[in-house]
Amino acid sequence: MEFDHAGIATTDAAALAELFADLFDAPVAHEEEFDGMTVVFLELDDGYFELLEPHGDGAIGKYLDKRGPGIHHVALATDDIDGALDHARELGVELIDEEPRPGAWGHDVAFLHPKSTGGVLVEFVQH
Amino acid sequence: MEFDHAGIATTDAAALAELFADLFDAPVAHEEEFDGMTVVFLELDDGYFELLEPHGDGAIGKYLDKRGPGIHHVALATDDIDGALDHARELGVELIDEEPRPGAWGHDVAFLHPKSTGGVLVEFVQH
Repeated sequence: MEFDHAGIATTDAAALAELFADLFDAPVAHEEEFDGMTVVFLELDDGYFELLEPHGDGAIGKYLDKRGPGIHHVALATDDIDGALDHARELGVELIDEEPRPGAWGHDVAFLHPKSTGGVLVEFVQH
Repeated sequence: MEFDHAGIATTDAAALAELFADLFDAPVAHEEEFDGMTVVFLELDDGYFELLEPHGDGAIGKYLDKRGPGIHHVALATDDIDGALDHARELGVELIDEEPRPGAWGHDVAFLHPKSTGGVLVEFVQH
């Protein structure tokens, strides 16, 4: 699989986007309002940062309350998200999303449960 | 800059390496004892997971005590780590490492302070 992005929980996506664009030479590639959040993708030479600024009490809002801002998840790209989920099930990995669902930027996404993956929240994404 | 790796704090690098190698098709590319830790790099199609299992009370040991296992940092590769650090200083970013130091796998590394970067611990790495 291929690294796709690191998802960052933040209380100020605009300010962090401005800093990261300059500091990491990672310009804004995409921005949208999605699922109660401002979502900003910053483009690295390979892969992205995905900045997630929630406007309410969803999963990212709760994460910010509990853990503070920082790295929330790592996303890996696959050309076969259904096969990747089947393989995870075969290995006994618990899934948050049993089936792919529409994610930001029009991609199909599914999350694995971090208790199965060493505390790492992993997202599978198919563009 | 280019994504290099996601650093993962773990209490069992061998078990996590075995799972991730299969689950993410990310075979072991390098393993060493470094700075009081077992360090395992797993190779994605672009970039790596770096598994960090501490044997004592260093920074990663303290992180595990405080936050539990999971994503510890994101590393970005640069061909000019000195220039990247100078640019970070110009932007007012606080540095953990004012100068590059030897990191795992023989690379030069320097960490930025997460309080300057939205809670995200970022490592610059030059191969």
